[in-house]
Amino acid sequence: MGKISPFAPKRPPHLPALDGVRLASAAAGIRYPGRTDLLLALFDPGTTVAGVLTKSKTASAPVDWCRAHLAHGMARALVVNSGNSNAFTGKRGRETVKLTAQAAAAVADCLQADVYIASTGVIGEPLDARKITGRLAALADDAKADAYADAARAIMTTDTYPKLATRKAEIDGVEITINGIAKGAGMIAPDMATMLAFLFTDAAIEPQALRASLDPAVDETLNAITIDGDTSTSDTLLIFATGQSTARGAPRIAHADDLRLAGFRLVLHDVLHDLAHQIVKDGEGLTKFVTVKVTGAETKGAARTIAKSIANSPLVKTAIAGEDPNWGRIVAAVGKAGEAADRDRLAIWLGDILVAKDGEVAPDYREAQGAAYMKQPEIAITVDVGVGKEAATIWACDLTKDYIAINADYRS
Amino acid sequence: MGKISPFAPKRPPHLPALDGVRLASAAAGIRYPGRTDLLLALFDPGTTVAGVLTKSKTASAPVDWCRAHLAHGMARALVVNSGNSNAFTGKRGRETVKLTAQAAAAVADCLQADVYIASTGVIGEPLDARKITGRLAALADDAKADAYADAARAIMTTDTYPKLATRKAEIDGVEITINGIAKGAGMIAPDMATMLAFLFTDAAIEPQALRASLDPAVDETLNAITIDGDTSTSDTLLIFATGQSTARGAPRIAHADDLRLAGFRLVLHDVLHDLAHQIVKDGEGLTKFVTVKVTGAETKGAARTIAKSIANSPLVKTAIAGEDPNWGRIVAAVGKAGEAADRDRLAIWLGDILVAKDGEVAPDYREAQGAAYMKQPEIAITVDVGVGKEAATIWACDLTKDYIAINADYRS
Repeated sequence: MGKISPFAPKRPPHLPALDGVRLASAAAGIRYPGRTDLLLALFDPGTTVAGVLTKSKTASAPVDWCRAHLAHGMARALVVNSGNSNAFTGKRGRETVKLTAQAAAAVADCLQADVYIASTGVIGEPLDARKITGRLAALADDAKADAYADAARAIMTTDTYPKLATRKAEIDGVEITINGIAKGAGMIAPDMATMLAFLFTDAAIEPQALRASLDPAVDETLNAITIDGDTSTSDTLLIFATGQSTARGAPRIAHADDLRLAGFRLVLHDVLHDLAHQIVKDGEGLTKFVTVKVTGAETKGAARTIAKSIANSPLVKTAIAGEDPNWGRIVAAVGKAGEAADRDRLAIWLGDILVAKDGEVAPDYREAQGAAYMKQPEIAITVDVGVGKEAATIWACDLTKDYIAINADYRS
Repeated sequence: MGKISPFAPKRPPHLPALDGVRLASAAAGIRYPGRTDLLLALFDPGTTVAGVLTKSKTASAPVDWCRAHLAHGMARALVVNSGNSNAFTGKRGRETVKLTAQAAAAVADCLQADVYIASTGVIGEPLDARKITGRLAALADDAKADAYADAARAIMTTDTYPKLATRKAEIDGVEITINGIAKGAGMIAPDMATMLAFLFTDAAIEPQALRASLDPAVDETLNAITIDGDTSTSDTLLIFATGQSTARGAPRIAHADDLRLAGFRLVLHDVLHDLAHQIVKDGEGLTKFVTVKVTGAETKGAARTIAKSIANSPLVKTAIAGEDPNWGRIVAAVGKAGEAADRDRLAIWLGDILVAKDGEVAPDYREAQGAAYMKQPEIAITVDVGVGKEAATIWACDLTKDYIAINADYRS
């Protein structure tokens, strides 16, 4: 897969075992030789689940399956493969999902409706169910409570490092844990490369409350890195809550507005923020991590649209790759976003350096300052559009020749 | 600027002299050493004008000027410079435009309101009006009726060849000519690099009728190549009609629905189509010219949105650069467009090769066919989204390492 991201962590975090979750992975030979590509997670009875799925009009068969079953909110097994997204595979794709659910239900001794499935990789190629179903019994035998690192590796596609995060919180005085694994996307705005994230907790939270806790946290984390991420064919985020902390006295929470959930919701945001940044920092071919903040917008949505317009502009992204403080391209990206902005009150900062204000270059700005700033690995662009009080932040990366090399050669 | 586009015409077309138009260009040293960067066009009294300007919220000072004066619809002079877009230059930018109009009005002996101005190049750097105003008198002395080739060169920025087109039509039996010059954009979707196009004709057409003829032609040509082109800071299209063909018996047309305009409107479309394709074929770093056609959509707008989603997808564009028939990325781009599409009725063609139908790979499709097709310089992608009867076409190019190299180094 070429070069390792310059932002790869020196040592991935260790995720502790969680009561009620066991994991196993295997090399099923789905696409990539010599690496694991299949993950089975098993959950104890009583585990609740909530999720967020892609809004794509061409969603994959596994996404259709998860959408159909999330309503009832209970889970006993998760099957994830990399190498083939089982998207745009028609009737055969649906059969593969059905056969996978049958096989997983057999090994987990549960209903098929309690099985969740996610696939990531190439679109449009039939996925042979037997590569998966034939492995599940052995995986179930092998499943262990502390196998998160291997699990995170098994779901990678073009990722150059596994993404793992863990946090602890208290619910009514009882410690609970949230573990998370994710796989990144080809780019900061995963347009085909799927974003998958799976969270596991021993907290006891009813499905509705779990979902209500998830949505706002996703909005400010995973949805703030992905311009088109919410509409790839396979994007999937699932959180599984085993409820096993009740054995240690934790309450079972039924309502999202239960104040005892406050700490849990904070760390849920934190885990997702951590995983979201890890995904960006493994953007294909990246050399820079970019934070784009837009202030002074009429609405939060407008601020986000403008921030995405900047973060997604190929000309802004190539300028950053070239360490060129070409702020004129930022002005153009603000202009094309289509949201209200007052050209003659616009202000732009690179880090703490005021580059432009009142619609023209700042009197004290010197190109050398901007050029020096752009040499840093982490770049912060702030734009005040001068029409209101709302703000939004988007995280992105630069666009380099290595991105082209990786994607022009992906399948061949 | 590096390599010449592989699609550069072997020999640019010759544009004939037109009664009522004289052109001159000069090297004013605005940014680029050793090349022309200033164009003056002079029009005889009675010349009408119509135009289409960027919708950017951060439009340049020259765009503001043109917008303010297009309403009255008469023109005597056009001043265009390359190298500096005079965008995001605040009060000084407006002063530069005013000084330019004053100087051009003096040499053309006309009202300032009859002067049109366009600037293209770097954003946010002050443009010294004296570099322009001091040249205009000499340019006026030097202006010639057959200087289109030099004019097209003077407005280039990162273009690797000048864009020229000419067509003849008849209005009420009298031959008229439309000449056009254009400058391209950094990319197929010019997000900052400005698109400028100027048309000249000896037809006699009142401003309202001229504008009404222009809009539909632009919609299917220049607007069908530019995903964000309508919202860069400086995009400008102007057509000047000298009316001098009346000396040869041509009528003066007052209404766009005058049937005598039919031939003119056809060739107007044709000239714009020609220039639009020339712009795409000079996309920075391109190796492939791509036609994306979407059929079976609910509305024409939906068809265009989906076609743009495909044509603008970095993953589709890099796959084309890599000659990879990676049609799964086309599926993903359809899905993320957000418009109605029936995944299970979707069909995709590469050229005449049916790649996918009914929501999965076509039974007879073989990867080797697609791979052979992708080696051609001109690639046609057709997608039927299976929900309606509307269609749209977008022209685009691939995304290569050379694009990154050009844009990461543009200013440094």
